[in-house]
Amino acid sequence: MMNAAIPVAAEALERFVQAVYTHAGLPDADARVVANSLVQADLWNHQSHGVLRARWYFERLKAGVITPQTRIDVIREKGAVAVLDARDGVGQVVANYAMEFAIAKAKEHGVAALTVRHSNHFGTLMYFTKMAAHAGCIAMLATNGGPAMAPWGGARRKIIGTNPWSIAAPAGPRPAIVLDMANTGVARGKIYLARQKREPIPMGWALDADGAPTTDPDAAIEGLILPMAQHKGYAIAALVDVLSGVLSGSHFLSAVNSPYHFDKKSGAGHFLTVWDLEAFMDQAQYDERIEAFIREIKSQPLAQGFDEIFYPGEVEARAAEINLRQGLRLPADTWQDLATLAAEIGARDLLEASRLTAGSPAESPSR
Amino acid sequence: MMNAAIPVAAEALERFVQAVYTHAGLPDADARVVANSLVQADLWNHQSHGVLRARWYFERLKAGVITPQTRIDVIREKGAVAVLDARDGVGQVVANYAMEFAIAKAKEHGVAALTVRHSNHFGTLMYFTKMAAHAGCIAMLATNGGPAMAPWGGARRKIIGTNPWSIAAPAGPRPAIVLDMANTGVARGKIYLARQKREPIPMGWALDADGAPTTDPDAAIEGLILPMAQHKGYAIAALVDVLSGVLSGSHFLSAVNSPYHFDKKSGAGHFLTVWDLEAFMDQAQYDERIEAFIREIKSQPLAQGFDEIFYPGEVEARAAEINLRQGLRLPADTWQDLATLAAEIGARDLLEASRLTAGSPAESPSR
Repeated sequence: MMNAAIPVAAEALERFVQAVYTHAGLPDADARVVANSLVQADLWNHQSHGVLRARWYFERLKAGVITPQTRIDVIREKGAVAVLDARDGVGQVVANYAMEFAIAKAKEHGVAALTVRHSNHFGTLMYFTKMAAHAGCIAMLATNGGPAMAPWGGARRKIIGTNPWSIAAPAGPRPAIVLDMANTGVARGKIYLARQKREPIPMGWALDADGAPTTDPDAAIEGLILPMAQHKGYAIAALVDVLSGVLSGSHFLSAVNSPYHFDKKSGAGHFLTVWDLEAFMDQAQYDERIEAFIREIKSQPLAQGFDEIFYPGEVEARAAEINLRQGLRLPADTWQDLATLAAEIGARDLLEASRLTAGSPAESPSR
Repeated sequence: MMNAAIPVAAEALERFVQAVYTHAGLPDADARVVANSLVQADLWNHQSHGVLRARWYFERLKAGVITPQTRIDVIREKGAVAVLDARDGVGQVVANYAMEFAIAKAKEHGVAALTVRHSNHFGTLMYFTKMAAHAGCIAMLATNGGPAMAPWGGARRKIIGTNPWSIAAPAGPRPAIVLDMANTGVARGKIYLARQKREPIPMGWALDADGAPTTDPDAAIEGLILPMAQHKGYAIAALVDVLSGVLSGSHFLSAVNSPYHFDKKSGAGHFLTVWDLEAFMDQAQYDERIEAFIREIKSQPLAQGFDEIFYPGEVEARAAEINLRQGLRLPADTWQDLATLAAEIGARDLLEASRLTAGSPAESPSR
């Protein structure tokens, strides 16, 4: 089956996505955060966390399980710690607010930690941890999510989320060093992307509902995703849930709902810690050391099949540079979803304006 | 080849190991920390990090690359952050001190973070993160180590350590929930243990010096260990080095020396963060929630080949209980190493006293 890619200009696409969420009742600034983070995920080639999800959040807003006007309560604050209640607000807006809050607190105390309860799925984590790196801090962000795995030694019942986590650290003038991973062998979104692209998934990613290995994305979605590195991925996912679910006062394990269900409140909780570089070391010294670190990594002899060694996060930064210049290539199914959405909110022109035709230049906005 | 296990009483073995380090010039209290942490690793069935290593640290002390009288300088302190210089002191003593320091600071600020430079390998990480759990805190501890892996896409040259990390969280009256892992597919110590046990290693753990897969532990030690979950393990190991090596002002990447070399200073750095539970949530509420979390995990339907589902850290706690009651079973090679060491320091009787013979009861000290 054909599923050709549609060339799209990122900044124009972002204007359309922003219109989607303004239409759903978000304040302009909040709609901008959601749109920017979704398109940024596509720019990083994280299509599974990009505008593919625009419809999901939109449906959840329409269903009233996400509150469009995000109001966050600080319900506990002690020293370098705070506990936030996001009151079912928009996940991206919540994560953006929490990260800014944590950065400011870290600048004061050297380190700061926050938990967030009653939030929502917020897309790609590194969008938010990179905010801290831009502010001269190192950040860790983790979140629980809807059940995707059995505990190690368990069968049939999904009770633990992929529970992704990210750490970002400044790298001087280079793009930040970033880790961003789910604790399943594969991010759940990649299985949805395979379904949308109508491609089989590799063996070893998932079991079907009967506990048998499968390459069918539909069967995998009905079945169980296997943890990364066997029991290790299970252990990390469990600890992420302790930090972001148990400790935050939010939902945990099977009580969290995934964003794939449009009619249920999420109950997701988050955990953030931000460390201010300057509390540990003078910026100039850190910059010199991290540059030496990166240079040593990148100067190693290459393994077969590799042209270059990348530091973590570099591949995404490189992709964003290229995609901004040449335009994004959205799967036709994703484009079709967006076209339906555009018709629904009366914004066909706005979406069409993002489509690149032969000869039209991709925009190069300053990001 | 025969390599029968020798039954040994843990507490008596600990007295012997303490004597080893007192002989090497450590103050009594410091020798006790080293001995207790090594024997505790054996009790958890982490033999790769147990008394198998007693000789290594002893040799490094004799060679003068570990300073027996640990003197730690606090070289920077701001708010909830401190930077320590361990001045080549004993790794276990340093980690013990740093964790107590961080716990006290977390009780004051809600969260605290420390880096440590110029330290040494300190054995099993969970020994130290569990200290925080006992004090009503959640702790993360990470350390860099001697080169063990190539960066992802690199070949032949080892420049990144296994860079293990641990997180421990209280679990009410139950043993702490603990994650403790290296970022290689397998802990380097397990390859040394396989060599000592004269057993082959599974395919997929390592490449030999020519970059070919191997099951020979000697060839693996000469070659390259593969990262856990491919590029994911590489990313975590790199970030651990940024935190514990670059940010601490210690050595990083190929400049760190492994404890397997007896004649070189380590240069290892550590990174700790401790979060005080009470800053986030009342203890009673947390205890209730973590109990519900554990119960849900343990009550799931079992996969084939499993009798019970364990939460992370539970297997080790269960093993310690049994090993304390029934005695440890040390590989004969390890026992022989200890016997040679005992002869060297004139403490044969002390070692022999730990050996269990038919009918002699294993001691059950209060731990």
